[in-house]
Amino acid sequence: MTRIAIVGVAGRMGRTLVNAVQQDDNATLAGGIVEPGSSLVGADIGELAGVGKLDVAAMDSLEDLAADVEVLIDFTTPQVTLANLAFCAEHGKRIVIGTTGLNDEELGALDGYRDRVPMVFAPNMSVGVNLTLKLLETAAKALGDEGYDIEVIEAHHRHKVDAPSGTALKMGEVVAESLDRSLKEHGVFAREGQCGPRDPKEIGFATVRAGDIVGEHTVMFATEGERIEITHKASSRMTFAKGAVRAARWVAGQANGRYSMQDVLGL
Amino acid sequence: MTRIAIVGVAGRMGRTLVNAVQQDDNATLAGGIVEPGSSLVGADIGELAGVGKLDVAAMDSLEDLAADVEVLIDFTTPQVTLANLAFCAEHGKRIVIGTTGLNDEELGALDGYRDRVPMVFAPNMSVGVNLTLKLLETAAKALGDEGYDIEVIEAHHRHKVDAPSGTALKMGEVVAESLDRSLKEHGVFAREGQCGPRDPKEIGFATVRAGDIVGEHTVMFATEGERIEITHKASSRMTFAKGAVRAARWVAGQANGRYSMQDVLGL
Amino acid sequence: MTRIAIVGVAGRMGRTLVNAVQQDDNATLAGGIVEPGSSLVGADIGELAGVGKLDVAAMDSLEDLAADVEVLIDFTTPQVTLANLAFCAEHGKRIVIGTTGLNDEELGALDGYRDRVPMVFAPNMSVGVNLTLKLLETAAKALGDEGYDIEVIEAHHRHKVDAPSGTALKMGEVVAESLDRSLKEHGVFAREGQCGPRDPKEIGFATVRAGDIVGEHTVMFATEGERIEITHKASSRMTFAKGAVRAARWVAGQANGRYSMQDVLGL
Amino acid sequence: MTRIAIVGVAGRMGRTLVNAVQQDDNATLAGGIVEPGSSLVGADIGELAGVGKLDVAAMDSLEDLAADVEVLIDFTTPQVTLANLAFCAEHGKRIVIGTTGLNDEELGALDGYRDRVPMVFAPNMSVGVNLTLKLLETAAKALGDEGYDIEVIEAHHRHKVDAPSGTALKMGEVVAESLDRSLKEHGVFAREGQCGPRDPKEIGFATVRAGDIVGEHTVMFATEGERIEITHKASSRMTFAKGAVRAARWVAGQANGRYSMQDVLGL
Repeated sequence: MTRIAIVGVAGRMGRTLVNAVQQDDNATLAGGIVEPGSSLVGADIGELAGVGKLDVAAMDSLEDLAADVEVLIDFTTPQVTLANLAFCAEHGKRIVIGTTGLNDEELGALDGYRDRVPMVFAPNMSVGVNLTLKLLETAAKALGDEGYDIEVIEAHHRHKVDAPSGTALKMGEVVAESLDRSLKEHGVFAREGQCGPRDPKEIGFATVRAGDIVGEHTVMFATEGERIEITHKASSRMTFAKGAVRAARWVAGQANGRYSMQDVLGL
Repeated sequence: MTRIAIVGVAGRMGRTLVNAVQQDDNATLAGGIVEPGSSLVGADIGELAGVGKLDVAAMDSLEDLAADVEVLIDFTTPQVTLANLAFCAEHGKRIVIGTTGLNDEELGALDGYRDRVPMVFAPNMSVGVNLTLKLLETAAKALGDEGYDIEVIEAHHRHKVDAPSGTALKMGEVVAESLDRSLKEHGVFAREGQCGPRDPKEIGFATVRAGDIVGEHTVMFATEGERIEITHKASSRMTFAKGAVRAARWVAGQANGRYSMQDVLGL
Repeated sequence: MTRIAIVGVAGRMGRTLVNAVQQDDNATLAGGIVEPGSSLVGADIGELAGVGKLDVAAMDSLEDLAADVEVLIDFTTPQVTLANLAFCAEHGKRIVIGTTGLNDEELGALDGYRDRVPMVFAPNMSVGVNLTLKLLETAAKALGDEGYDIEVIEAHHRHKVDAPSGTALKMGEVVAESLDRSLKEHGVFAREGQCGPRDPKEIGFATVRAGDIVGEHTVMFATEGERIEITHKASSRMTFAKGAVRAARWVAGQANGRYSMQDVLGL
Repeated sequence: MTRIAIVGVAGRMGRTLVNAVQQDDNATLAGGIVEPGSSLVGADIGELAGVGKLDVAAMDSLEDLAADVEVLIDFTTPQVTLANLAFCAEHGKRIVIGTTGLNDEELGALDGYRDRVPMVFAPNMSVGVNLTLKLLETAAKALGDEGYDIEVIEAHHRHKVDAPSGTALKMGEVVAESLDRSLKEHGVFAREGQCGPRDPKEIGFATVRAGDIVGEHTVMFATEGERIEITHKASSRMTFAKGAVRAARWVAGQANGRYSMQDVLGL
């Protein structure tokens, strides 16, 4: 059983992480941190998350964490994350970092801990998305330049402001790299009017924005006679929380180092 | 049993029409016309189409058609079609016209026969596409301005030169009209970069071009909590041939007039 | 603005209903009822639902409702619902009932109020599901006995204990009735081993059970050359809550009577 | 340019193979064999296949093949295939075998040529299906026993007599082996009535039979928060023909041995 503490346990992602740890037979909740001075200090983190009493009280300082906590899970802000890394280095803890938005300086600081802390750092902790990237690499290499047209179709909710999604672009890049193509050169992000026939090296993108779609991505490889489609559908932020818990269990057994989700999944 | 003759029986659409009539329990092949002077005059039209001997020989003139032919099916050129309409008016035959590309003058000439010939004229004879247009009207009116985002997703083969497809645009127009919106104003045909959140009145289009896809169209109505999707997938030109045969059977029982596939389907 | 009160406002459905009313520009929250003696009496129902303070306090008795409440929404138990109907009859209120599990006697009692209360009563309030049933009827009648094979595919989460789903069966029934077929006779619920070729009158069902799928239903009409697919995907219980709010707005303008969601949607 | 001869060039698969070779920039047609005494001896195999004159005449004996033919493609019968293997051994040719239905004795005879002929032998030559099997293995191993439910959904035309399809079963077996499960023990091929909640180790199958669907297979891995779906859709027998041509090009550079499509694709 990996003993886990959640940083930012009162937020939406924090509560989801409590749920994900609770559902995992090989992990257990050993602590939860809220902002200093929060009125929630002392509240039961299970009740906070709506999973029932767990007899673990929210605290506002890592210093108070039980000695047997092994791994922190941290989806917070760059400054908080760097402070937590310092704590881990000092106290021999491990950490899973889902924090986004680090600038180059902060990334450098984070990387400076790679020899002192076992850490998993990933911009997208979804197991499915990371697996999908691996499947795309395998597919692109096998189909190679054998006349398969490649299209990326993605759908997200009405509030999303950019297109295509970052994940769709990442998928396109993985495919392009596997085929020694440049996405900059061969990516086609919009088709309208008289476009002419498709260039065989195109990597096309189609974007759907509607309703409450959490995130759906399909990469299609199509030729005369057949299609292969690899699809990922996220239905809730549990996809990220479960990935983080899986990373926590895995990093509990690793030496110092900075690891990715690809490492966690053995891909 | 409706007795049908196929004009242009040696072409790809003509052969498919022979197949479609053969599969229909309520229709029978009574004639097939090829170009004047063709080396195929006299050939069995069943063997031509690969369905086995039918004991119906290809002819190069309508004048030789057996007296009991009731309906012509004509997917040819505007000039041939107008000549065939004159023949029908004179000999009391009916006609199903799938010919495309008529200019305004030719359309006027065609329409001039509406009081003398029972005819079905439709740019797209697919039963499924015509039904889908009706379903879209029903759906759009029921969902109205209740916060459902509408997106049209279409996929076609790599050789298609325009985007979105004519059928996708038609679907968008049916939806727009049902909602008193203008597709010109609210249609969004490409999304790329920082587009901002979706406008509730948008009708979005996403285009996929890949492989040998004959034609797939989905219209999605999505809101928080649910999605309704209405999809048409064509797998071969049999979809047009079967629609034409159904129209032929139907028009065999109609008075003079110009009818659409909506009339045929009773929608 | 329709003024709505939610019965059972502290439950999961009640909280979702608060969200749905908040999102609706033509409805407003005027009351919320909790169980008699609940510790939540006096709590702000907006805060209860996580949408922020609404200055509407939870009460434990309908008698205390503001005089200007027009419609109750009630997803509770048969006994509570019947008591609420009596209240509506006495005080000139209207009601939307999503309560399930009424026995014949309770159904009779409910129906007894049809001359005294304007009520909408529906086992499934989802706008999309009810629209889909109408689309299926239209499609089945148009495609008739023209050689279209009909299949119902449904997917639900791992916890669902019965197959196919009630909604899938309802869809099958609507299709069967539209075609004068008996689902009992022509429904095929499982295929395994040497089944032989498909009977043209079959209505097939395929069942998927996996993960957290809230509920997805597709009805496919397929023939040589084309397929039409009509799909409903539920992503959360908001689909039911939004349907109930729409029903509430609609019933605010109706005379005494018992109405269905088909009436609300004008289908 | 790999120089290829097609055995059985007048059949439907033979004609499709002619098409597939014509479309391949790195292969050329150098011969075509028809049944001894066929009236088609001497006919141009390009005209036979509908791709225009190729100046290659159909022959009824391998002995007459041009000396520079490198690879035979053979989708025929076990006896013909074994005779062709003997010819290849004697004349230093290579062979791609798509023949099915060999009994154990015939399989043994075929295998006896592995030290004398470079051959590719595969029951299903579709590149996409073989790639999909590899992707499934990768996915199953990565997701392991992490709470992902696995379902196989397949759809075929109305004439198919068995369920699930052989390919669906093969997909299920690959997944089961990757997870150290037995498909015999954990495969669930039909769900009907009160089935109870899903067993986590189940591998479920859902079967659709409708219209002219050539063959569609989806394997879904679903857990709380996400789904990964790997889909193969065949649209014509070109999928098998193109795989065979790719195998022919590949085997032209191999030493004696019996190879699979996995070898060809480097998976």
